[in-house]
Amino acid sequence: MPVTRRQCANAIRALAIDAIEKANSGHPGAPLGMADMAEALWRHGLRHNPANPGWVNRDRFVLSNGHASMLIYALLHLTGYALTMDDIRNFRQLGSLTPGHPEYGHTPGVDITTGPLGSGIASAVGMALAEASLARKYNRPGHTIVDHMTYVFLGDGCLMEGVSHEACSLAGVWKLGKLVALYDDNGISIDGKVDGWFTEDVRARYLAYGWQVIGPVDGHDSDALDKALAAARADTERPSLIICRTHIGFGSARADSEKSHGAPLGEEIAAQAKQALGCAAEAFTVPADVAAAWDAREEGARLEAAWKEAFAAYEAAYPELAADFVRRMEGRLPEGADQALADFAAGVRESRPKLATRVASKNVLSALVPVIDDLIGGSADLSGSVGTKTPSSTMLDTATYEGNYICYGVREFGMGCIMNGLAVHGGFIPYAGTFMVFSDYAKHAVRLASLMNLKVVWVLTHDSYAVGEDGPTHQPVEHLAMLRSIPGCKVWRPCDSEECAASWKDALATQGPTCLSLSRQGVPFIDKQAGAPIEKGGYVLRDCEGVPQVILLATGSEVSLCVEAQARLAEEGIRVRVVSMPCCEVFDAQDAAYRESVLPDAVRARLAVEAGWPDYWRRYVGLDGDVLGLDHFGASAPGGVLAREFGFTADNVVERARALAR
Amino acid sequence: MPVTRRQCANAIRALAIDAIEKANSGHPGAPLGMADMAEALWRHGLRHNPANPGWVNRDRFVLSNGHASMLIYALLHLTGYALTMDDIRNFRQLGSLTPGHPEYGHTPGVDITTGPLGSGIASAVGMALAEASLARKYNRPGHTIVDHMTYVFLGDGCLMEGVSHEACSLAGVWKLGKLVALYDDNGISIDGKVDGWFTEDVRARYLAYGWQVIGPVDGHDSDALDKALAAARADTERPSLIICRTHIGFGSARADSEKSHGAPLGEEIAAQAKQALGCAAEAFTVPADVAAAWDAREEGARLEAAWKEAFAAYEAAYPELAADFVRRMEGRLPEGADQALADFAAGVRESRPKLATRVASKNVLSALVPVIDDLIGGSADLSGSVGTKTPSSTMLDTATYEGNYICYGVREFGMGCIMNGLAVHGGFIPYAGTFMVFSDYAKHAVRLASLMNLKVVWVLTHDSYAVGEDGPTHQPVEHLAMLRSIPGCKVWRPCDSEECAASWKDALATQGPTCLSLSRQGVPFIDKQAGAPIEKGGYVLRDCEGVPQVILLATGSEVSLCVEAQARLAEEGIRVRVVSMPCCEVFDAQDAAYRESVLPDAVRARLAVEAGWPDYWRRYVGLDGDVLGLDHFGASAPGGVLAREFGFTADNVVERARALAR
Repeated sequence: MPVTRRQCANAIRALAIDAIEKANSGHPGAPLGMADMAEALWRHGLRHNPANPGWVNRDRFVLSNGHASMLIYALLHLTGYALTMDDIRNFRQLGSLTPGHPEYGHTPGVDITTGPLGSGIASAVGMALAEASLARKYNRPGHTIVDHMTYVFLGDGCLMEGVSHEACSLAGVWKLGKLVALYDDNGISIDGKVDGWFTEDVRARYLAYGWQVIGPVDGHDSDALDKALAAARADTERPSLIICRTHIGFGSARADSEKSHGAPLGEEIAAQAKQALGCAAEAFTVPADVAAAWDAREEGARLEAAWKEAFAAYEAAYPELAADFVRRMEGRLPEGADQALADFAAGVRESRPKLATRVASKNVLSALVPVIDDLIGGSADLSGSVGTKTPSSTMLDTATYEGNYICYGVREFGMGCIMNGLAVHGGFIPYAGTFMVFSDYAKHAVRLASLMNLKVVWVLTHDSYAVGEDGPTHQPVEHLAMLRSIPGCKVWRPCDSEECAASWKDALATQGPTCLSLSRQGVPFIDKQAGAPIEKGGYVLRDCEGVPQVILLATGSEVSLCVEAQARLAEEGIRVRVVSMPCCEVFDAQDAAYRESVLPDAVRARLAVEAGWPDYWRRYVGLDGDVLGLDHFGASAPGGVLAREFGFTADNVVERARALAR
Repeated sequence: MPVTRRQCANAIRALAIDAIEKANSGHPGAPLGMADMAEALWRHGLRHNPANPGWVNRDRFVLSNGHASMLIYALLHLTGYALTMDDIRNFRQLGSLTPGHPEYGHTPGVDITTGPLGSGIASAVGMALAEASLARKYNRPGHTIVDHMTYVFLGDGCLMEGVSHEACSLAGVWKLGKLVALYDDNGISIDGKVDGWFTEDVRARYLAYGWQVIGPVDGHDSDALDKALAAARADTERPSLIICRTHIGFGSARADSEKSHGAPLGEEIAAQAKQALGCAAEAFTVPADVAAAWDAREEGARLEAAWKEAFAAYEAAYPELAADFVRRMEGRLPEGADQALADFAAGVRESRPKLATRVASKNVLSALVPVIDDLIGGSADLSGSVGTKTPSSTMLDTATYEGNYICYGVREFGMGCIMNGLAVHGGFIPYAGTFMVFSDYAKHAVRLASLMNLKVVWVLTHDSYAVGEDGPTHQPVEHLAMLRSIPGCKVWRPCDSEECAASWKDALATQGPTCLSLSRQGVPFIDKQAGAPIEKGGYVLRDCEGVPQVILLATGSEVSLCVEAQARLAEEGIRVRVVSMPCCEVFDAQDAAYRESVLPDAVRARLAVEAGWPDYWRRYVGLDGDVLGLDHFGASAPGGVLAREFGFTADNVVERARALAR
């Protein structure tokens, strides 16, 4: 008797039940509910190769409701990825390949980290855009090298989160026909039946975005799912949402109850469920015929081999394009990038431009964009203000997918997740800008980029009270501290064009997110010693003879105040060192000897100057130093007026430094 | 000749042009575009009293596209609020009543701070819910005391932001018939024509949410606007969206161009525009007949007087209800709240419960909810986990608006803005919960609550790596630092039930937001000295004889580790003081003598222990102390395993304290 599709789906269910029971922790409801959907997709159409999770032309799979992690672990195990039954047994244990939520870069076959609801579907939009853009750039007649789908599973929670609105609205604008989302419509969220808080007409909503909406279909009817998936793939002009009516906790006594969502079923219900599903009572077993039916290794090898053959022909016909494609997918910078940065830095050392650092950043970008095709820029509707659009930037054309610049609209969080999707797909270095104060909206996207070590660059301008007239709603205060406290996130706050070039250089070399903190207002160019080690994140910018009586530390727009103060204090005979500290994270990573050479432990009279939350700087100035910062909200007035009001003047630096020097 | 409606609208336009030109800064496009909408609403139906911006039954007005601030300043001036022409002249100047974006609590007649797009419409949902809930609670047959509309102006940007999706979807669920939003549909955002990034069918989207959608109407046709507003008011079952087709920069040579959005028109275009609009060339003038046509003082006085009369009759018929209503609208706590907290604290000192602090918080709430009607609770779909739903909590009934508990669904940012709306309306103390890691999604709502000094309480549970198996996506690391760096925001991280009661007590007494940081895992009850001053935010929990060799500072779930370590170190003869620091902001606000009594300047051997971003604590331990924190992401494993892995053990505290004591 041939294996039935339900038996295949039930293999997922059994593994999910077993792993969650053994861990005594996890979310059984969703994998039990979505197992038939998973069977339909993963056994009937998903193009992937378990032996090579990094195959660049594989279909991408995003489990946006990431708490259903046992679903994907079961799928990876069953189809033949390097995820053993022991790994399944170690679900949610320290160091295992099967953590509580899927983690990119940790488990072979997991295309993106999910769990924070909404972020998965939003990033999937970026992945689908990456495919479309690369296809346009690299495919040639008779040589279709880039051609894959992006599939998403998502739940009610993802649809409630605002970021799904932002990104899915854009997916409609962009007509991403190869994006297919399967909505696990089970009518239950953690607080119970969703009728009390989620009554919107999802179908109408997605039609409003310009999507194809299919269903509702019975999410446990394999034939219906096949037809829906076929219809979704057939519409190449619109992203598709398949509404799948399912039963959370399918097969268990907790079906259709929120009780199945986030806690193990418990021994008794688990055993009953496995029996009802016709699965063996023994834990962690898959019948041989079911295992064989799931095994995708042969087909996967065939798919990738065919692609490799096609790629070889492409390589023969278009060697340069092929080499460039490989370079981009491997994440190597093109030749010329370092030279462009070096030339730029040499140029500004010559011309000494007095510019807002947001303009300096635009100038750096203007040098980089022509030589780094990987760069894909954008802004949350502030292109002119944040300087992300360069003369070489061309708007994304939604008919052809040509272009290297995206107007994301006023959608910071969506922009962040889409950038993560572009980066995690491969082939792109996304950068985008908004006002720093609105990094709040996108903060969790930055966190996820850090967690995944994704190279994305945030261009955060208008980085202090010096925004001026727009007032406190638009003036960041606490944001530098917020961003710096994200593990693995680098914040660069350059003081001028030269430091700005160094910031971009480091950002491009960093496998992780970088936030650039850039001024709205003009700042002077600061002459530095030849070879000043900006790349070390912090360095002695001005020094005195002998041991300093005071060290001034500053970043960005406040550096020039310290340079001026130092000169004036020198006239008074006070020995002052000025340390420019454009990137604390990079400085902290230097060896102890270097750090000591910049900030000698014995010199505790230290004044940090930065127009942000002051106490961040206690890590450098300690209890005996001082900080000139801002511990309150800003105000609406011209920036220069506020500088005096808030004490960001060389006079005040002089005064406070003098007090320390006593 | 009677004054025309267009003339009235043009008075707004002229003032907007003049003020922006004089400030040489601002956003003319939106006020010019929305002036006819404003005239239709503010001269034909808005019920308010310029002499008393605090009249509790006034219609609320939310300028969600807050960059159009000159629109509301012009309206307030023209209708007769205490906003003089000099105030208009001082647009965007230091200390003026006319800052760049509207600020609640600063300018008479501004009902809420706006500027961060989307937040206004989202908070308006909370304001409308407040009205509906108070009406249900206090109105009686023949005595309609609470009965007002909530009007919103919003633009494309608000609709693009995800938070508008979250809150407007809920507004549909809640059937908020008295919420009317006017959409300034001008087809332009900062980056240009929105066709490239905003093609969704807004009408279909809002119908999907269960709203009435009216229009598109010509946003410059007063009769059409009147009819649309009448239709909006007539539908009492659904919130209404009126789509108003307008021309940004109406009347100027920059009409229909993004160039009018965010920069002054410039002298020449400004003069042309004023001429074209038939306005006097002289700046800051309003023709007498136009001024008279706008003056709403008489009508406003009549409206409020009629309400006062009705309220007097209500007071006579229902004195207790009336007194309670007045108390709530004045923001005074009811009698009994303090006693309930004192009783609770006494009880736990007796019973010494070992509980997760999230459960301790639920227990405190369970004592408070029955005595404080003002409390309106909720959760972003985690009611059971975060302990916000008490035995006295009843679900909001969307048919009757009874109930004091809201299931917000998985919508953290929307929840935060709605809480802000409930608070700013008056009559409510909103509290709601989610996992701390998802405070990221809502961070900007917390910021806005701080900026407005709104009493809202965030119940942030699962506050460290000790979340355990859910892994790094669900384990906060940097969030305590993020929240503490928001000016005016208090973060309480209690160590047990007694500190939890003190946290709630302080939160209820604070005119500003409070974030409670609460553990997932159980923690011991900590015996304290009688009268231990928990309310001071930090206090000596355990002391030694003589000058301490080491001070241990800890919060929340790490306090018990330090208590244990102190006892063990005492056996070794090492003199250790333990400071419990549940709220740094409150401790910092104590006088210097108290702070010195807790943290003597001379004792620099200090070890801070908190399962979060370590460098926050450098402000207390300086360069010579040590911090046992977490400077990296967490991992998926049982919490106890992670505690050992990450060093959150008494052994490690002992070892690190010993090293400092040397």
